[in-house]
Amino acid sequence: MKALRKARPQRGAQLESVAVPQTSPSDVLVRVRAASICGTDLHIYGWDRWSASRIRPPMTFGHEFCGVVETVGEEVTSVKPGDFVSAEMHVNCGYCRPCRMGQPHVCQNVRIIGIDADGCFAEFVRIPARNIWKIDPAIPEHYAAILDPLGNAVHTVTSGEIAGQNVLVTGAGPIGLMAINVARACGCALIFATEVNAHRRELAITMGADEALDPSQPGIVEHVRNLTEGGVDVLLEMSGHPEAIRQGFQMLRQGGRASLLGIPRDLVTFDLVNDVIFKGATVQGIYGRRMFETWVHMTELLKHHRLNLDPLFHERLPLEKFESAFSLLESGQAGKVLFYPNGSLK
Amino acid sequence: MKALRKARPQRGAQLESVAVPQTSPSDVLVRVRAASICGTDLHIYGWDRWSASRIRPPMTFGHEFCGVVETVGEEVTSVKPGDFVSAEMHVNCGYCRPCRMGQPHVCQNVRIIGIDADGCFAEFVRIPARNIWKIDPAIPEHYAAILDPLGNAVHTVTSGEIAGQNVLVTGAGPIGLMAINVARACGCALIFATEVNAHRRELAITMGADEALDPSQPGIVEHVRNLTEGGVDVLLEMSGHPEAIRQGFQMLRQGGRASLLGIPRDLVTFDLVNDVIFKGATVQGIYGRRMFETWVHMTELLKHHRLNLDPLFHERLPLEKFESAFSLLESGQAGKVLFYPNGSLK
Amino acid sequence: MKALRKARPQRGAQLESVAVPQTSPSDVLVRVRAASICGTDLHIYGWDRWSASRIRPPMTFGHEFCGVVETVGEEVTSVKPGDFVSAEMHVNCGYCRPCRMGQPHVCQNVRIIGIDADGCFAEFVRIPARNIWKIDPAIPEHYAAILDPLGNAVHTVTSGEIAGQNVLVTGAGPIGLMAINVARACGCALIFATEVNAHRRELAITMGADEALDPSQPGIVEHVRNLTEGGVDVLLEMSGHPEAIRQGFQMLRQGGRASLLGIPRDLVTFDLVNDVIFKGATVQGIYGRRMFETWVHMTELLKHHRLNLDPLFHERLPLEKFESAFSLLESGQAGKVLFYPNGSLK
Amino acid sequence: MKALRKARPQRGAQLESVAVPQTSPSDVLVRVRAASICGTDLHIYGWDRWSASRIRPPMTFGHEFCGVVETVGEEVTSVKPGDFVSAEMHVNCGYCRPCRMGQPHVCQNVRIIGIDADGCFAEFVRIPARNIWKIDPAIPEHYAAILDPLGNAVHTVTSGEIAGQNVLVTGAGPIGLMAINVARACGCALIFATEVNAHRRELAITMGADEALDPSQPGIVEHVRNLTEGGVDVLLEMSGHPEAIRQGFQMLRQGGRASLLGIPRDLVTFDLVNDVIFKGATVQGIYGRRMFETWVHMTELLKHHRLNLDPLFHERLPLEKFESAFSLLESGQAGKVLFYPNGSLK
Repeated sequence: MKALRKARPQRGAQLESVAVPQTSPSDVLVRVRAASICGTDLHIYGWDRWSASRIRPPMTFGHEFCGVVETVGEEVTSVKPGDFVSAEMHVNCGYCRPCRMGQPHVCQNVRIIGIDADGCFAEFVRIPARNIWKIDPAIPEHYAAILDPLGNAVHTVTSGEIAGQNVLVTGAGPIGLMAINVARACGCALIFATEVNAHRRELAITMGADEALDPSQPGIVEHVRNLTEGGVDVLLEMSGHPEAIRQGFQMLRQGGRASLLGIPRDLVTFDLVNDVIFKGATVQGIYGRRMFETWVHMTELLKHHRLNLDPLFHERLPLEKFESAFSLLESGQAGKVLFYPNGSLK
Repeated sequence: MKALRKARPQRGAQLESVAVPQTSPSDVLVRVRAASICGTDLHIYGWDRWSASRIRPPMTFGHEFCGVVETVGEEVTSVKPGDFVSAEMHVNCGYCRPCRMGQPHVCQNVRIIGIDADGCFAEFVRIPARNIWKIDPAIPEHYAAILDPLGNAVHTVTSGEIAGQNVLVTGAGPIGLMAINVARACGCALIFATEVNAHRRELAITMGADEALDPSQPGIVEHVRNLTEGGVDVLLEMSGHPEAIRQGFQMLRQGGRASLLGIPRDLVTFDLVNDVIFKGATVQGIYGRRMFETWVHMTELLKHHRLNLDPLFHERLPLEKFESAFSLLESGQAGKVLFYPNGSLK
Repeated sequence: MKALRKARPQRGAQLESVAVPQTSPSDVLVRVRAASICGTDLHIYGWDRWSASRIRPPMTFGHEFCGVVETVGEEVTSVKPGDFVSAEMHVNCGYCRPCRMGQPHVCQNVRIIGIDADGCFAEFVRIPARNIWKIDPAIPEHYAAILDPLGNAVHTVTSGEIAGQNVLVTGAGPIGLMAINVARACGCALIFATEVNAHRRELAITMGADEALDPSQPGIVEHVRNLTEGGVDVLLEMSGHPEAIRQGFQMLRQGGRASLLGIPRDLVTFDLVNDVIFKGATVQGIYGRRMFETWVHMTELLKHHRLNLDPLFHERLPLEKFESAFSLLESGQAGKVLFYPNGSLK
Repeated sequence: MKALRKARPQRGAQLESVAVPQTSPSDVLVRVRAASICGTDLHIYGWDRWSASRIRPPMTFGHEFCGVVETVGEEVTSVKPGDFVSAEMHVNCGYCRPCRMGQPHVCQNVRIIGIDADGCFAEFVRIPARNIWKIDPAIPEHYAAILDPLGNAVHTVTSGEIAGQNVLVTGAGPIGLMAINVARACGCALIFATEVNAHRRELAITMGADEALDPSQPGIVEHVRNLTEGGVDVLLEMSGHPEAIRQGFQMLRQGGRASLLGIPRDLVTFDLVNDVIFKGATVQGIYGRRMFETWVHMTELLKHHRLNLDPLFHERLPLEKFESAFSLLESGQAGKVLFYPNGSLK
């Protein structure tokens, strides 16, 4: 089959022909319909420090997708060939302390398909049956391809109270934009976004933000604090930028919640006393998606048409056009780009 | 001043002229703009068993209202004459164990204005400053008059997770209808209502229910269980009717939440084993409104136009027309009826 | 192998020779060291209405045990022959809504080993690897045999805040007694027990209760309310007796928690208004044990010697003496009785 | 009356004769029995940067105490002259968003008695009635004098699950030592402490730690991780030292809780990605004590003799000996030092 491979420990990727994955009795083989490119895939493509430390070439990458079940192992009863599915790509061990404590999403021995094992930028991908997620027929195909990052957004938004809360989203990349839309759907009060890119600020308004602010403008901290009786109730940090993080915390009220998903490249220097301790803030590290509460929440929101994610989609390409896809994303202009490894783009 | 009084321990009420309430240093005197009639007021008017045991005539009743601050006691700094306000009418003691445990809404020594002290069916009402709630200018006057029952609805809906949850509301009276609207605004999945009255079933759909079911029709339990993978996630019990309660629990999934606000007249017989214990259900008694989390939530939802309660309002009357107001409500046809004790109906 | 079987749909049991269970690739075969008799086993033995509706003879019963791994299926890596283990006997499906919502202990499709499949009153028992629980070496064998009911107690106690809380345990059978000991270990304030049996009241004190009350004595409701500023913070219902349940709720304070584990035989009539709704109570149905948070909690409490359960153990018998074991328990005098199907009682 | 005053904006303090405080109708005047010196008082005495920015001399400092009610304002009904009391010294406004959201302990307009108003290092102190806490007769006087810092410890420990959890306390000063004792009383599993001072490490063991480690020794991170299946469940940060904070987070497991009470002097540089985000950690800023949940918890733990704080007490002195008291504490050798402004040390 066709697969987009990280063949060597260096920048770039290669379209190769490889064997269809072999499956065990508890696995499912999925024919990939649409796959989406994540920021992590850009890092793997560009071969940064993190990639060099984690990825073991040669391997097939990609971990956001939807597709159709091709075959199932003999022990699998939860899906059958022909079912339309996506998957949680974090495979947890089931036995470590977090797994036993109801937190499989932070399993100490997690293995990620598309990072630690062959992924979905290929005609077929192999998934353990427990990680398969059946797609409700009411959910359109292009939405089904991005459940992984939408799950990040839903997990972040719903990690605490959201109805009636004033919200700040720092960073309006794809997941930040989804978070805005999710927060609105869940009955939040005011939503502010901060974002350096003017195009993304416009998108933030389209997705439901009340105000999209340029973080470099003077006075925005006071502006937000004035409109919210002393600061937002909830900070959703999606930028990974140290200055945005600091500014975000300054706009958080006493006793507020900060849920951090964005990944800073370096160490971050913090005013822990004023921004966390005296503030009585709750700060949550957000990783992956809750297994599988987030998948249920996200499915229900989509099924009942509570979200409108269409403005996020940019291009649909065959796998062969991977170079232009990655260039587009590296330029920072695009939203979500979809690959169709088995052809027939709609 | 003019006041609608329960003058004697028997059915009925009387419009009388009484002294304007005297205020202490920490009190606020409010000129009532609009007052709304609660089901509890109907009980007091009709003089049922509960009224006879609790109400001490002569007294002015009424506990849902909005108005304008007339004067404030010398220690009051939180509001000033001219402010547009409503109030939490449950006056908590501040010192009992629930008060000290962050649960003032279930204070062991609560005193309710309009039940245990003179209420708002009058030109003026006296309120302790801590119980005054300033109304955001974005909130229309007729909504401001019903924050008390809306608070019941918001408290019930938000007493657990609601975003992405399938919901059943049993009983579509005014609070049930508000709860439907609130649940929808907070991103719930499917909403079912059960209600015997056909007109109210229509209103339930208007307010946002996906289906409004007649509880006497056969097969509705199976119908709801089939559409929800085994039962709704959340039951909001608003009827107080034993059969509706039992039916509601049968439609609740394993591990679901049941929040009970409706008041049964008599003892209720329960299948505790199957409906609660083996089901691993969480059942919550809902009383009043959280002080003042619910008030914040409700204000934000209204201020940001997440709710549409207009279909609930029925009539606006001068206090003099109290007899027709109570007749209307006793007939079961009306939604919310508003009094204007200081005249000038809009 | 030797197995205690429900051979026919009638009172009694039979010791038979049957084949050792066959295991699948993901199963573990355990050589039973000690097995304990549960109240449910008494029902099966006595063949009550519930048993007749659920149990399908012929089958081997028993679901509380510890033992040594004999063999493991080819896919099993979490344990190996020789490991000392117990097991969660509720086998959840992994795919229903409760399973997906982080509530596998209330799985809609649960299958219970010892009830729906052959259990542990035998020389060997077959367990899916995911349900095996490795025993910490610091935990004595007789404690390892009763992790199932101890888990019920721990689940009930820890289903809400317990440190600093006044607690009432209604019913001092084995699980009630364990709950007393667990609550004490977790820093609760006063512990009251109500129990009709004088011997069990004594045991309640031994296990850590401050007062063990006879529920038939007049004035106990007022007595408990007086000592606790208006009622206990937490009710742990372990009796299943309607009158004890009602009395328990009367002793629960406004805003308190009631966690219900005891199984009433019949419908229960409730003062829902005063005992739940106006009280703002939270009522929890408790079923099984949280998978596997409760197992972690219980292991840590035992490992660090926070519990003393020795007073609960009564007799150790070979499987052949099953008739005297069941008689003893039916007489209501005994605590936990252990079987040693592979001989060599210590 | 006699009062220990910060008379001038510089190092030191002065014993002066001042007027007894005047009280308003809702105030209580308390005759101070015993007052305890907090780390904050050391800062005020030494006149550091924080003190210079916050304290407005001349004023009486001190905020940890117990005493006897001397007089009450005319509106006060909750206590009467002769009652033995302590007080929550954080006076919240009651109207800001945190106050209205059930978080008065992080009030945006908090005023602290002993910092923003005259405190308890005096014969008398004035306290608003709502902030008075009646002392249960079962609680000894010297414990009653330190409820403020004990409340910090109890608030930190109980800000999440503690029963069955492995715990690390970084920093074994007085509050760290109390936290160890509280965690043990609440049924935690292993307790580790890290502390540079050898004497305090000994005290940590006395107070209930299983191991007290010198943070400068190599290999302690691995040591703790090995004993806890990958890291402690709960980090209680009591040192305020940047290196201890970083080390503490390295010993926290995936999905763990970190509750931060210690106050770093400067900005802290953090590995936010590995220590919080990828870890899925929950980080809580802890400030003051929950009003008044923490007071209830602490009272119950003391009343039922679940804590032993005696090893923490060092010296009892008349107010006149303030210079030796502060010298003693600045040397870092002492535990809690008590003043007796009205004489008669026991």
